Parts: sequence; structure tokens; C-alpha cells
Amino acid sequence: MGLFSKPIKTLGDLLTHALQDLYYAEQQIVKNLPTMAQKATNPELKAAFQKHLTESQGHIKRLEQVFQNLGESAKGVDCQAIDGILAEAKEIISDCDDPEVLDAGMLFAAQAVEHYEITRYGSILAFAKQLGKESAVQPLAQTLQEEKATDQALTKIAESRVNRQAA
Amino acid sequence: MGLFSKPIKTLGDLLTHALQDLYYAEQQIVKNLPTMAQKATNPELKAAFQKHLTESQGHIKRLEQVFQNLGESAKGVDCQAIDGILAEAKEIISDCDDPEVLDAGMLFAAQAVEHYEITRYGSILAFAKQLGKESAVQPLAQTLQEEKATDQALTKIAESRVNRQAA
Repeated sequence: MGLFSKPIKTLGDLLTHALQDLYYAEQQIVKNLPTMAQKATNPELKAAFQKHLTESQGHIKRLEQVFQNLGESAKGVDCQAIDGILAEAKEIISDCDDPEVLDAGMLFAAQAVEHYEITRYGSILAFAKQLGKESAVQPLAQTLQEEKATDQALTKIAESRVNRQAA
Repeated sequence: MGLFSKPIKTLGDLLTHALQDLYYAEQQIVKNLPTMAQKATNPELKAAFQKHLTESQGHIKRLEQVFQNLGESAKGVDCQAIDGILAEAKEIISDCDDPEVLDAGMLFAAQAVEHYEITRYGSILAFAKQLGKESAVQPLAQTLQEEKATDQALTKIAESRVNRQAA
């Protein structure tokens, strides 16, 4: 069992675990995005990272609201998945020395983060629906929609500009 | 810089890095799927894990073909992202003691793996297209399609059976 987690005996426990996991993940993402925005050369990519930073700060507040609606205290649980994804992102960033290749590498890394958030928000939204936790459904659905929009925006930037310049 | 990787100076280097990363990730996934299939109670979920094991073995061979087509030797590079995702999956599995909640937890974990594969195959397919590496495009597109189909199949199982039973 995880050091700071408790046994998962019900789907409700799994929902709580997943919320805590995402609460930690969003905080790690917020810590890393300013560096990515600062290092980006392509102005659209820089703007996308800055926009996602603001959005992610909102996602943290939204998770706090969901915890409150469910009568739970907002807390994070160490999430090895996001730690691994961000560690790999940092490694790729440190390995790229050409600015255009760095932009492509950061897009590559950022889309892995987005997909992690999409899968987790998708799962907890399904758990909340199945458990009839209506107060959690709308805020989680809104965040999921924003994460998907960010991923689509990053794909568009990759296809239209960044990767072509790096090629 | 990563211990066993080389500096990423071009988009071609990023493609190679991403292929090596996925080659390692697919091998780790193949190592973990038999345990997940064995632990699954829901017959559809068990069958989905078994099917994905066979597919993933095919994905490894397909990556070897892509390396060969590109004139490179097939090798993996340590991938902290998949290591983190699988470590978290193992933790969730060990924390769930009810069989139906365990199924829901394994679905939760497996969909994170699928989304990781979807983002990585999506990125390397884009790199291969932008670099005009036609011999890599078709096999990578085929694997990407299979990963998306697996994720959709898992979502269907989650929505139709497993999570409802665990609720």
C-alpha cells in the first residue's frame, strides 16, 4: 500500500484516491509550466503554456470545490505517474539545445501531461457519475473539456508550425 | 542529459529518442499485462488485457521494423514516464482488496497506460510525417489506431459493467 494512502475498498475510495492524485498532479504541473513558457521560442506555444498555467490554477481551485462538495478535505497524494512524466519532460528539455527542436520536445512532453490529465479526469468523472455524486460531475466535466481543448491546441501548434520548423 | 541517451539536436534525434522510449515502454507493458489479466475478475476485462498483450507483442515487432526501415538498431531507453505510470498502477492494484473495485482500479490504471501510448505514438507519427519518413508512417499509424481502439474498449467495459458493479 502507498505510504500516505489508505486501502481502496470501494469505488468511492477509488474516486477519493484519484482526486488526491490529480490534486497533487495539478500542483506539480503548475510548478513546471512557468519554465516551459519561459523556454518556448514559438510565440503560440509560449501563449499556450501561459494560458494552461492560468487554467491549471483554476483546476486546483475546482478540485478544492469538489473535495468540499463531497465533504472531504483537499489533500494530495504522491503520484508516481505525473512525477515520472515530468521527470522525463525535464530530461528531454535539458537534452534539446536547438530552440526549435526544444519547442518540439516541449510539445512532445506537454502532450503526455495533457493525456495523463485527460485519462484521469475521464476516469474520475465516470466514477462520480456512477456514484451519483452530482456536485462533482459538472466541475470535473468542465476541467476535462479544458484539458482536451489544450491537447487539441498543442496538436494544432505542432502540426502547423513547431515541428516543421524543427525538421 | 539522460544517462543512456544522446543530445537531441534535430527533430530526427527526437524521433529516435521517442522510438527508443516507446520500445522500452512496450516491453514494460508486456511484462505487466499477464498479471493484470490474471487478476481481472470481469471476463470482458480479462479478455481485453489478454488481447492487448498479444497486440503489444506485435507493436514491439512493428517498432523493430520501423528501426530497421530507418537504418537504426532497435534499442530501448529508460522511460521514467511509463515507469511512474506502472508503479502507480501496481500501488493501486495492491491497495484494492475487493475484486470488483480491483477491476475498476485496473481499468483506471490501464487507461493511463493507453493514453501514454496514444500521445507518444501520435507525436512520433507526426515527427515521421514531417521528416518524410514514409516507411515509418504506416506501421506507426496502425499501432496508434490499435491503441485508440483498446482505450475505447476499456472505456466501454468501464461504463457498461465494471464501475457499476464496484459502486
